[in-house]
Amino acid sequence: MRGKFLTIEGTEGVGKSTNIAFINDFLRSRGIDLLVTREPGGTPLAEELREILLKKRDEAFDPTAELLVIFAARSQHLQNIILPALNRGCWVLSDRFTDATYAYQGYGRGLDIKHIELLENLVQHELRPDCTFLLDIDVALGMQRARARAELDRFETQELAFFEDVRKGYLARAHADPMRYTIVDAGQTLADVQQDLSMSLEKLLTD
Amino acid sequence: MRGKFLTIEGTEGVGKSTNIAFINDFLRSRGIDLLVTREPGGTPLAEELREILLKKRDEAFDPTAELLVIFAARSQHLQNIILPALNRGCWVLSDRFTDATYAYQGYGRGLDIKHIELLENLVQHELRPDCTFLLDIDVALGMQRARARAELDRFETQELAFFEDVRKGYLARAHADPMRYTIVDAGQTLADVQQDLSMSLEKLLTD
Repeated sequence: MRGKFLTIEGTEGVGKSTNIAFINDFLRSRGIDLLVTREPGGTPLAEELREILLKKRDEAFDPTAELLVIFAARSQHLQNIILPALNRGCWVLSDRFTDATYAYQGYGRGLDIKHIELLENLVQHELRPDCTFLLDIDVALGMQRARARAELDRFETQELAFFEDVRKGYLARAHADPMRYTIVDAGQTLADVQQDLSMSLEKLLTD
Repeated sequence: MRGKFLTIEGTEGVGKSTNIAFINDFLRSRGIDLLVTREPGGTPLAEELREILLKKRDEAFDPTAELLVIFAARSQHLQNIILPALNRGCWVLSDRFTDATYAYQGYGRGLDIKHIELLENLVQHELRPDCTFLLDIDVALGMQRARARAELDRFETQELAFFEDVRKGYLARAHADPMRYTIVDAGQTLADVQQDLSMSLEKLLTD
């Protein structure tokens, strides 16, 4: 039987890493073989593309070029890692996927949503995640957490207003397809966040 | 006045470098401000993408991912180098452009031509070269010349049959649009090749 494809999304400082570890432990304790991966990246070649995306440089990164590099890394990740894992019955949890492209490049940077759809279809054909956990938090609070944690990369040093747009994009997509998305209030205590995740995971296991 | 956009194409060993130098000298002697550039590459970021494309590695390069990286580099090159030059009246000569993608990825690798067209429109909108010089040579003779010259990269170590398909692709495109393409028999003596190029360039100067 084909594995389930899960993704986890959210703006900076929502606590993705902590909750990925939680989901991993939860599913493994139920006997699920889970592959945890991330985007952009997930294969050595896709990680080289990730470095190109995150590197700070003087040369302006043309927005269309950036979008194409993101989808190139995604195609590599899908064909060489995600699809082979799903096909052998393994579940896959990806730290970000195409929702991040809609939220950051589409809603955040203002790239044409139609171009993102076109590339999504070219690269993914019919494949969409079975379940997407959207960790949602007040942007200012999230940034405060992210700043406390580490140096910010090229994407994280954007203006607060940019991240407000990204958050709006995530929420718009989640509200448009409530069957696929589980919105989790990441401003709650960690225990409450993980209670919400557990309920959603229990449901996935019985589907 | 907007500059003219010229490209030069051909399989391995057709003598592109020598003839690029010839075209450059010819046009400069007529007072044309010419920018010579190349693909994939042409900007520092696009050259980083070129390195990723040409690097020999164990991981299989997903053909769609490769196509997206090629067009990412092209978008970067167009927006940051080619279009600004054309807009300030400079002529541009690019060592390979989208015809190479049709010939190598489409006709050579068998990627769907429709996907290439879709990305060409996404990245270039209406822009097409004003003139494309196709240096055409018997594939075996070209490979013999290329081998005598230097170590072959990932693209150049393909089978002879692959390059036969690439050559066919170039010729099919050139025959479909004879107004844009000048096919030059690169098996002639260099003097004869450059005589053909001169005639074509004279015509461009009077257009």
